[in-house]
Amino acid sequence: MSVIYPRVALIGLGLIAGSMSLAMRRRGLAGEVTGYARSDATRETARRIGLVDRVCDSAAEAVADADLVVLCVPVGAMGAVAEEIAPHLKPGCTLSDVGSVKRAVIDAVGPHVPEGVDFIPAHPLAGTEHSGPESGFATLFDNRWCLLVPEGDVRPEALDRLRALWEGMGAHVDEMEADHHDLVLAVTSHAPHLIAYTMVGVADDLRRVTDSEVIKYSAAGFRDFTRIAASDPTMWRDVFLSNKDATLEILGRFTEELFALQRAIRTGDGEHLFDYFTRTRAIRRGIIEAGQDTDAPDFGRAAKGA
Amino acid sequence: MSVIYPRVALIGLGLIAGSMSLAMRRRGLAGEVTGYARSDATRETARRIGLVDRVCDSAAEAVADADLVVLCVPVGAMGAVAEEIAPHLKPGCTLSDVGSVKRAVIDAVGPHVPEGVDFIPAHPLAGTEHSGPESGFATLFDNRWCLLVPEGDVRPEALDRLRALWEGMGAHVDEMEADHHDLVLAVTSHAPHLIAYTMVGVADDLRRVTDSEVIKYSAAGFRDFTRIAASDPTMWRDVFLSNKDATLEILGRFTEELFALQRAIRTGDGEHLFDYFTRTRAIRRGIIEAGQDTDAPDFGRAAKGA
Repeated sequence: MSVIYPRVALIGLGLIAGSMSLAMRRRGLAGEVTGYARSDATRETARRIGLVDRVCDSAAEAVADADLVVLCVPVGAMGAVAEEIAPHLKPGCTLSDVGSVKRAVIDAVGPHVPEGVDFIPAHPLAGTEHSGPESGFATLFDNRWCLLVPEGDVRPEALDRLRALWEGMGAHVDEMEADHHDLVLAVTSHAPHLIAYTMVGVADDLRRVTDSEVIKYSAAGFRDFTRIAASDPTMWRDVFLSNKDATLEILGRFTEELFALQRAIRTGDGEHLFDYFTRTRAIRRGIIEAGQDTDAPDFGRAAKGA
Repeated sequence: MSVIYPRVALIGLGLIAGSMSLAMRRRGLAGEVTGYARSDATRETARRIGLVDRVCDSAAEAVADADLVVLCVPVGAMGAVAEEIAPHLKPGCTLSDVGSVKRAVIDAVGPHVPEGVDFIPAHPLAGTEHSGPESGFATLFDNRWCLLVPEGDVRPEALDRLRALWEGMGAHVDEMEADHHDLVLAVTSHAPHLIAYTMVGVADDLRRVTDSEVIKYSAAGFRDFTRIAASDPTMWRDVFLSNKDATLEILGRFTEELFALQRAIRTGDGEHLFDYFTRTRAIRRGIIEAGQDTDAPDFGRAAKGA
């Protein structure tokens, strides 16, 4: 596969940036990858493990002469970063990001984008419970979806090039409008994360059920919630604060449904419960058939002590 | 490993019964295993695949001369089954079950247990999203917990023997009081399942987000919910109807917490969110350290197309 961008700059060096660098390296998609992170410790670690080709000590230095600049910082930090690097962006380059919300990113970054720079927000639907410069890996995006959210005037060739990069890194690519993106992700990601956080918080709070019991007996269903409840707190704080309306809408629907099911339980309405659970099984089938999950027992976790 | 029970009868031939039979066979823990299921089709399939040593055409026939009888039917059916088999139980045998609630099982089955039979309810914390006679496998219980809930007069040697069986099938065994069991499981299993069902139902309902989008983009967090929302509808209807109080209590706490988090989002209280999410990460760590899960990316699902 050939080089898609001679020079790529990654601002922020966490799980996503690290994985992008490794995925680009895997197939030689970039000539040189520079990186910048705000903390000394992160830059030090990134240098030590050779996460990118060159770690810079300022964002301006990292983006100088870059053909693609990707903002990989928490959504709440993107506006300030964009303002700082704007004067240093090469004319004709592409500015992108990997944030989990799109309208807020466009509102924060858009005003700083110079003439002649293509601004193409993006969102790769991939992640793990880990954070930081050592958490990335080359296969993170394989068979995952990446959504491109071009806003305003974007040259078709710039869009094609970014699409080619994400496909080269293993992802399927779709384009989507920003507000629709935020609603879809409220359903498939943001609300589920908040609900998982809440369930884990409730379990933690209960005095009558000890932490060790919750942990020991967590295979009963609870532990699947805990994975996403271990997600990076900074990132998720910013996601909820910046996708407020859509998230609150979904949570509102959720509590309506939950109260209806609670009522069915309280009144002993077995039929309502049975019908509801039968319907949800079909969605699960759809996900397996779409190749987006495995129905191996326990998601294929290796059986221990067999 | 030596034979623990010369004759074992499994009433109901689904995921759990099938897995028990295969796990017993794996280490020669039982002399002969008989089985009964209410539907002709299930008995036919069980015969065809050799799920147990002998499939019987009545529960009475299956339990005759059995040293251990295990009720593996939905919790709502256990009372009727117990009433039917009671006259046919061998004096000195052990009667057990695998139901996900314990107080309701004890109330339904207890009155039918004859003198001289040890009634030891049990609950293996293991399962998959699949059902039926072909869904079981020998390693289902490996490294999982099985809770024994002895009620009333139970001979110590009967309890030891049942413990030895579950350990031989790969599980760790704990004893627990029935009402405490139901509360613990409300936290670690029942409420999480209902919440997962609800989240999937909400996603299904939304007209503005198409089913295919929910499915395509489900790796963003949503798909972890869908696994447990595909659980057997009959089993779960019965679980909720028979663990009503504890489940409703946990759901009540859940909605309190959720409303507090919704309020923090609405009012932009980033600190509250950050602190909450930081706390939940610690629970996840505890689960990994207790050996009850893997922190391999995505629970170790194999990466496709790498």
